[in-house]
Amino acid sequence: VSHSSRPPRKISDSTVRRLSSYLRLLQEVDDSTADTISSDELARRAGTTSAQVRKDLSFFGSFGKRGLGYSIPELLSALRAILGLTQTWNVAVVGAGKIGSALISYRDFRKRGFDVRAVFDSDPAKVGRPWGSRRVLSDEHLEEVIRKDGIEIVILAVPAEAAQGMLDRLVGAGVKAVLNFAPVRLSAPEAVALRNVDMAMELEVLSYALSNPSE
Amino acid sequence: VSHSSRPPRKISDSTVRRLSSYLRLLQEVDDSTADTISSDELARRAGTTSAQVRKDLSFFGSFGKRGLGYSIPELLSALRAILGLTQTWNVAVVGAGKIGSALISYRDFRKRGFDVRAVFDSDPAKVGRPWGSRRVLSDEHLEEVIRKDGIEIVILAVPAEAAQGMLDRLVGAGVKAVLNFAPVRLSAPEAVALRNVDMAMELEVLSYALSNPSE
Repeated sequence: VSHSSRPPRKISDSTVRRLSSYLRLLQEVDDSTADTISSDELARRAGTTSAQVRKDLSFFGSFGKRGLGYSIPELLSALRAILGLTQTWNVAVVGAGKIGSALISYRDFRKRGFDVRAVFDSDPAKVGRPWGSRRVLSDEHLEEVIRKDGIEIVILAVPAEAAQGMLDRLVGAGVKAVLNFAPVRLSAPEAVALRNVDMAMELEVLSYALSNPSE
Repeated sequence: VSHSSRPPRKISDSTVRRLSSYLRLLQEVDDSTADTISSDELARRAGTTSAQVRKDLSFFGSFGKRGLGYSIPELLSALRAILGLTQTWNVAVVGAGKIGSALISYRDFRKRGFDVRAVFDSDPAKVGRPWGSRRVLSDEHLEEVIRKDGIEIVILAVPAEAAQGMLDRLVGAGVKAVLNFAPVRLSAPEAVALRNVDMAMELEVLSYALSNPSE
């Protein structure tokens, strides 16, 4: 396996999502029964084509041997390195409302390398409430805690009207990656990775599928 | 504007998501100041290229006039038709836990054509709890309510271990579109549109971005 950590060109989010799903699927393969997997089999499990699998992986080096498939342990380790999962990321959740609380309790985050170290809210009624072994912090301490705890990724789950102001504070405090759940378009400097989870958009993908059934 | 409602080939989810974001962005344009928009301007707002905008729209017919841009009202109406948003969809949420509750309270759903008509749970402690003007229903009544209320889309927010069994019941009851929040890979017949929202995958997109900063 030759894995070059820096890809030759900009990789789309869709490609990264597929790499993430290959990682997940490989983790589910029972490694007592097989230690290689073909691109056909990986594609079948991921619901894509083997050409797509080979193309996605080819951005990062040369994997697998013709006729032998991919070594599962080697591909797992390469995907973890590509996705930046050989380290644990320090995460904070801003907004302890329903979405924030649902996310905080999402048990897979920790297992997958994301350590939620702080939760903030601006509502005095929520500040001080326990979550796990800690408490919800006032967002007055946002900048201080971000620096002290080395927060790298923030999940932003505040109301739409508060989102841009909060994002500006996060950027000011040095946060380089934000996952926004507020249903509003935000702007951030180019150096900040900003992604949005838009529930209504996901429903529109289904609405499209229902309106355009395959022949 | 010539808009053919049936696209010539299978359209990817990424394309549908961009169409959804064009719709959102056009809705934000102040229509008292302009009634056309160029592909450059739409692309700038959507964070993509004008070639991508033109390609995405070209699947569905011919829009806009060279040098004049797109008519905003016509493009809005075409995007709504393409995305299947000229009707209201009947939606149910299965699972009244934290994620389900967060979704139920998401105010944008209704505005965007998704009417949450029923919420189910299997936990007797949750059944009967009020939500809006209704109550959480026992999932014993799942099939009956789905048929009676004409539920078309289900948001599945149950624990991972319960998800496939519940999906099978939904499919049996005739549901054709499911948005799954359980962190598990589910299988459904081809005729059922099944999409997954995977929070950890979204974080991995950020982890990738942090690990591969652009030059």
